[in-house]
Amino acid sequence: MSEANIAPWQRIAQSKKARRDSAIPTDWQLHHGQVPQDRLNVIDVPVKCGILTPCEVEITETDAPVLVKKMINMEYSSYQVIRAFCKRAAIAQQLVNCLSEVFFDKALEAAEKLDAEYRATGLTRGPLHGLPVSLKDCFKIDGTDASIGYTAYADRPTKKDEESEITKIMRESGAILFCKTNVPTGMMAGETYNAIYGYTANPYNRNLSSGGSSGGESALLALRGSPLGVGTDVGGSVRIPASFCGLYCLKPSSGRFPTYGLQDGMQGQEAVRNSVGPMAKSLDGVELWSRAVLTSEPWMHADPDCLPIQYRDVDIPKKLCFGLLLDDGIVKPLAPVSRALLQTKSSLEAAGHTVIQFNIDDPLYTDNLKFALYRSAAADTVKSILAQTKEPWPRGMEMLEAMANKENKGDDSNCPATVTDLWKAQIKRTEYAKHILNSWAATKTRTGTGREMDALLIPCTVWPASEKYKFIYDNYTSLWNVLDYCATTVPVTHASYTDAKPEYEGRSELEAKVWRDYSPEKFAGAPVGIQLVGRRLNEEYLLGVTRACDNALKAAKNISNGCGM
Amino acid sequence: MSEANIAPWQRIAQSKKARRDSAIPTDWQLHHGQVPQDRLNVIDVPVKCGILTPCEVEITETDAPVLVKKMINMEYSSYQVIRAFCKRAAIAQQLVNCLSEVFFDKALEAAEKLDAEYRATGLTRGPLHGLPVSLKDCFKIDGTDASIGYTAYADRPTKKDEESEITKIMRESGAILFCKTNVPTGMMAGETYNAIYGYTANPYNRNLSSGGSSGGESALLALRGSPLGVGTDVGGSVRIPASFCGLYCLKPSSGRFPTYGLQDGMQGQEAVRNSVGPMAKSLDGVELWSRAVLTSEPWMHADPDCLPIQYRDVDIPKKLCFGLLLDDGIVKPLAPVSRALLQTKSSLEAAGHTVIQFNIDDPLYTDNLKFALYRSAAADTVKSILAQTKEPWPRGMEMLEAMANKENKGDDSNCPATVTDLWKAQIKRTEYAKHILNSWAATKTRTGTGREMDALLIPCTVWPASEKYKFIYDNYTSLWNVLDYCATTVPVTHASYTDAKPEYEGRSELEAKVWRDYSPEKFAGAPVGIQLVGRRLNEEYLLGVTRACDNALKAAKNISNGCGM
Repeated sequence: MSEANIAPWQRIAQSKKARRDSAIPTDWQLHHGQVPQDRLNVIDVPVKCGILTPCEVEITETDAPVLVKKMINMEYSSYQVIRAFCKRAAIAQQLVNCLSEVFFDKALEAAEKLDAEYRATGLTRGPLHGLPVSLKDCFKIDGTDASIGYTAYADRPTKKDEESEITKIMRESGAILFCKTNVPTGMMAGETYNAIYGYTANPYNRNLSSGGSSGGESALLALRGSPLGVGTDVGGSVRIPASFCGLYCLKPSSGRFPTYGLQDGMQGQEAVRNSVGPMAKSLDGVELWSRAVLTSEPWMHADPDCLPIQYRDVDIPKKLCFGLLLDDGIVKPLAPVSRALLQTKSSLEAAGHTVIQFNIDDPLYTDNLKFALYRSAAADTVKSILAQTKEPWPRGMEMLEAMANKENKGDDSNCPATVTDLWKAQIKRTEYAKHILNSWAATKTRTGTGREMDALLIPCTVWPASEKYKFIYDNYTSLWNVLDYCATTVPVTHASYTDAKPEYEGRSELEAKVWRDYSPEKFAGAPVGIQLVGRRLNEEYLLGVTRACDNALKAAKNISNGCGM
Repeated sequence: MSEANIAPWQRIAQSKKARRDSAIPTDWQLHHGQVPQDRLNVIDVPVKCGILTPCEVEITETDAPVLVKKMINMEYSSYQVIRAFCKRAAIAQQLVNCLSEVFFDKALEAAEKLDAEYRATGLTRGPLHGLPVSLKDCFKIDGTDASIGYTAYADRPTKKDEESEITKIMRESGAILFCKTNVPTGMMAGETYNAIYGYTANPYNRNLSSGGSSGGESALLALRGSPLGVGTDVGGSVRIPASFCGLYCLKPSSGRFPTYGLQDGMQGQEAVRNSVGPMAKSLDGVELWSRAVLTSEPWMHADPDCLPIQYRDVDIPKKLCFGLLLDDGIVKPLAPVSRALLQTKSSLEAAGHTVIQFNIDDPLYTDNLKFALYRSAAADTVKSILAQTKEPWPRGMEMLEAMANKENKGDDSNCPATVTDLWKAQIKRTEYAKHILNSWAATKTRTGTGREMDALLIPCTVWPASEKYKFIYDNYTSLWNVLDYCATTVPVTHASYTDAKPEYEGRSELEAKVWRDYSPEKFAGAPVGIQLVGRRLNEEYLLGVTRACDNALKAAKNISNGCGM
């Protein structure tokens, strides 16, 4: 195809991708053929490829809060730390295509400045002093694009006064920003691919997805190309990739952390509110970020939607009670996910906690309420953005495309194009939220603790990690966006060749499709996480309960590994 | 007109109004001619008419928190208190037409039961033990209608399990419910009139409005027919009537107090959130209610939209700084309102506080954003309710009527009938909210206190109280619903024959209309209140600052009255 025949969107995509690739220094490039294309698990490549020095391996294998302490103690300089993570992020990018914007030079410069200032004054910048932090592509940073996978949004670098509030808070907290990470087009999918950069793979099994929409972030963090990442979640976009890549994360209730100034895939949509959340290899990292952001009191200056609730130190009771939902009645999770849930249950019980059954009635699903709430005007929004560069509709958006091209959208009960229809959906949502609130409160009589259940243990998705282009169900996560509860993920185990393939037919075409595609071999090695759900705006308590759960899991693993207590 | 010729809505209205009137015992009825129709100020009639005993006068002149204490100390029984207020409410009803639902019998029965229980156990019911509380018509109470002025909603008594959460919390807090109060049709006006009950007048000047939409409540409270009332506010509906009738009130930010289970005029509308707020003759009453409701932890069980924020005891600094806005640049308040603002300013300064100018830029108004946010689907909603009983469009809703009858509503920039338009309006609202947040935070450099301004002092409306059918401007209140800040009102003074009538032309047709209708004589005697605005979800602090302002006003009045300090 000659240059002249290339469509506008293709020209933009090619040049933008080339610029990203050229930002990786030659010294940090893997040798041709060093990692064969068909090698599925690449999780140990960064350590073994020879690009990192032993010291850089040590640094990049260290959790975020420890790194901050070591920089404050001057055991590491920020420059050292940043350089190690830039190198490891470069390796990760070559393995799984996880980065969108790369600005290592600026990061190294900022770290040098921070180090010099610290040596001169002895004053730390803030709770994230010197720490590399990676951001999902939608966070606007001075001088970089926030294209969120749209060629129409490429080559429109953010101006200084347009930066996202989280960007500013990260910098003011002492963090060093060094890269942004890949997302699906418009951030509207549970896996990560777009017309500019293509597909982001799962580093544990490159045939599988790293999740989405914060799927560049999860792949990067899993390979320890960053010690701490920030995503956004309006349907599962922090939790799904965290679960697929063996990470901890927090999906806060909306209003807890600032979302102001994001590049948004559905700007103005408020029926289900977006939230910003941290992702990391450790729960400590997730807590570090949460505390740091709230210490800045974002409601005072950053975001009119932020609620004035300080970070609250909480006492977690010794004996907890967890609700358990194994199956939402729509799509039963695949065998490795059920195994992870049962393993968590038995670990909790072994640690002295109790687990009770908790069912969720589902008028929500039967009414397609969630779909109505989210997608109301999304079709027109996406259509108008794509049209700017003649970019074709991305794979997986066939339904939106059909909606956008319909004459009378009001006829389609899935797509309330009128405000009156939106109001009706919102009435149902509020009724449903009240029903769940009542059910949650009613557990008090069954927990044996004198309290209601401390958290709800449920699948995060139905897959360990989904196959490419096969992510088709997100109700286990999106329900909690509709209801605005907070949630975390905990990595539990890995899918195995030995996982059962039960003869399960599925109760619907959707479920049958998920199960037809399942075989243990396909998913072997993929991380399997679970989701813990907490009451609305009860993030600190949920984090404490999540730690108790994680401790129980680790204790049980130590016993089964013969390490004893 | 023969019976057969009466339209459905008329038959319903007549029978419903007759039932309400018949609920007032003969003994409590004013003698024919005792209060001439043309007597404008009826505020002293309840005390002077002879229906109340001296003890009943004493009880009904007592503030809510003192009443609770006296009932707990057994100085009064709840039965005594309820009976006194039922009688006084009956008088108020005959003077200004303020009640919608009357259930004195049930209230007396409930009070007897409470008294017996208290005598037997010595245990109080809760923080509102035995206190009569009146509710705006939209609060659903078992066995009564919540018609909110629509004949279509008449004769549909609430079932036990449909009660509003506030109703339940009031009862569980020990309150005795005894009547509900009148509202404008669909609660969509700043004055109170509907097809069922007609117009609610201002007891200080019956040619004037008691405000709206909680205008039955304000008229009742002004006449001390209730010690504590509860309204709702999505555009000024608690503050406008409070200001018109010389009351204190709190319009909280949304999510602070439960709104679940209300009869809603625009159900499903969430772009500007409704809030529930207390109204009383004293600030103590407002605080009593706020603390009582939050003590019940409504976020745990009552309302999924409620935020988990306890009642917070706050320290108010001795020296405060108030921002002052005298004129929003659209409609300058009438002379008595400006006088009240300046009187407040000088009283604050005399008490050692400072007052700085604070201006509000107004893209909001020029874009008709507020209107777009509120009214999006309201026209269709109202039309469909009215149609059920062939009730005609009420006076003042001409614009909505025109919208509802338009074929292609998408053409009207005032009426975003599509979700895409709503999203656009919401984007602008968020940008505007951020702008105001920044402006508010920026006052820190000008206050001299080391803090930002402690509250903003502005008009509540442009009138002392508006003339009948002439309420046409609510931006001074509705802005804070759009932005979700909290606000209070403070009664300051009364309009007077001696108020200036400046030769003011008005900068627009709207403003000219307001000022053309102004003459000091028309408004003489009407209460004049001011509005204090506080940061979002900062209710306790605002109440403390409001008390400081009220104290400053009272101190200044004592000095000018020669009472000294």
